[in-house]
Amino acid sequence: MHRYRITIEYDGGPFVGWQRQINGPSVQQAIEDAIHAFSGETVTLFGAGRTDAGVHALGQVAHFDLERYFPAHKVHGAVNAHLRDLPIVLRDVEAVDENFHARFSARERTYLYRILNRPARPALDKGRVWWVPQPLDAAAMHAAAQTLTGKHDFTTFRAKFCQAKSPVKTLDTLDIARRGEEIVVSVQARSFLHHQVRNLVGTLKLVGEGKWTAQDITAALAACDRAAGGPTAPAAGLYLVEVRY
Amino acid sequence: MHRYRITIEYDGGPFVGWQRQINGPSVQQAIEDAIHAFSGETVTLFGAGRTDAGVHALGQVAHFDLERYFPAHKVHGAVNAHLRDLPIVLRDVEAVDENFHARFSARERTYLYRILNRPARPALDKGRVWWVPQPLDAAAMHAAAQTLTGKHDFTTFRAKFCQAKSPVKTLDTLDIARRGEEIVVSVQARSFLHHQVRNLVGTLKLVGEGKWTAQDITAALAACDRAAGGPTAPAAGLYLVEVRY
Repeated sequence: MHRYRITIEYDGGPFVGWQRQINGPSVQQAIEDAIHAFSGETVTLFGAGRTDAGVHALGQVAHFDLERYFPAHKVHGAVNAHLRDLPIVLRDVEAVDENFHARFSARERTYLYRILNRPARPALDKGRVWWVPQPLDAAAMHAAAQTLTGKHDFTTFRAKFCQAKSPVKTLDTLDIARRGEEIVVSVQARSFLHHQVRNLVGTLKLVGEGKWTAQDITAALAACDRAAGGPTAPAAGLYLVEVRY
Repeated sequence: MHRYRITIEYDGGPFVGWQRQINGPSVQQAIEDAIHAFSGETVTLFGAGRTDAGVHALGQVAHFDLERYFPAHKVHGAVNAHLRDLPIVLRDVEAVDENFHARFSARERTYLYRILNRPARPALDKGRVWWVPQPLDAAAMHAAAQTLTGKHDFTTFRAKFCQAKSPVKTLDTLDIARRGEEIVVSVQARSFLHHQVRNLVGTLKLVGEGKWTAQDITAALAACDRAAGGPTAPAAGLYLVEVRY
């Protein structure tokens, strides 16, 4: 048995998400099919983050096992050749030992959320950003966000259908800054609840608009109730940037 | 007669270019159609830069005239509403006096060229960058590029079918820098020859690969012969960023 670790970039737009589903094409299925096409083996891919439909990745990580041995660079070239018509590319392939698990060995995940904050809708970045036409105060959003870092019960920011055993997570960083017409949110944690980043961004946007204060954010977190939080930000602005082991 | 100046962002991918042509959809035609749909008037749009098929714009500028008066914000909203299914958006609309000409009044045009310089092909930025897998030396490219700034006969970097009267142009800036996996080229001049930016980038890439020296660039420029220059870089990496008046 030979285990491979792959690092993947994809445009989530055309997919039902990372995970294999019966209702449409998934990133996982596309890569499993490409592995089968070159190796003849039917594999199951384990991803570090199960990104939702429309969510993008710059550096998703996954692993799979092959019976037969191939050098990593052969796997890399062959899988990318079979993926060439899809907006999915393996950035890196590495042979790893069988103790490596893309999901359970991960020590830190970094997500990026892009808000296009200008009056005109996006033309070039359609499907790649959340368009918010009214001006947002990025500094106020960043200040309010700092009350959310550290270890908390994140029930307020957790999707109802989230399957995690515990709602307690440790948010290592939640940085928000304006870069020209964009507001860029960078979030790091060992692991996240389902929709946690999108729910955090959707709620902090209320601070950016001046509708909520930093105190409202603190109160929402303390309520431990999804109904106390703001709306879920759209999938299109979210990117899984990096997974560290 | 009422003249309007518009600032436009578009994804050049689905279009035959800025200029109206019989062989496919153009950006100019799409906007002229949108203006007709709301005003009932048939207008001709004059653009600052006639971008080729596949070339993008962050801030193309154009002007047109209407018989009937509409406030600029009405024009803005109405034209964008008619363009909503296309990757074209008016960022700004301004009423201007009839001496303003988008093409002839322009004092400075800024273009950006993006090279994705990494082993893996682009997934997220397909059609938005020139993918060069072999490592490029951005500092060497920048140093060589400095011999091209200033006033020169740019015949070497001019498309054969270029219609400009003179091949003499003044290049104000030609800056090349690495930003992570990308090499970003920023070029400014009052005006450009046809394919000038793409021919400059395609030639400077030879320096980045170590195939050419800065002296080869100087010699190519002095030759005043298109055959002495390098290949034309692909359209997909080029962006018309800004036009100043």
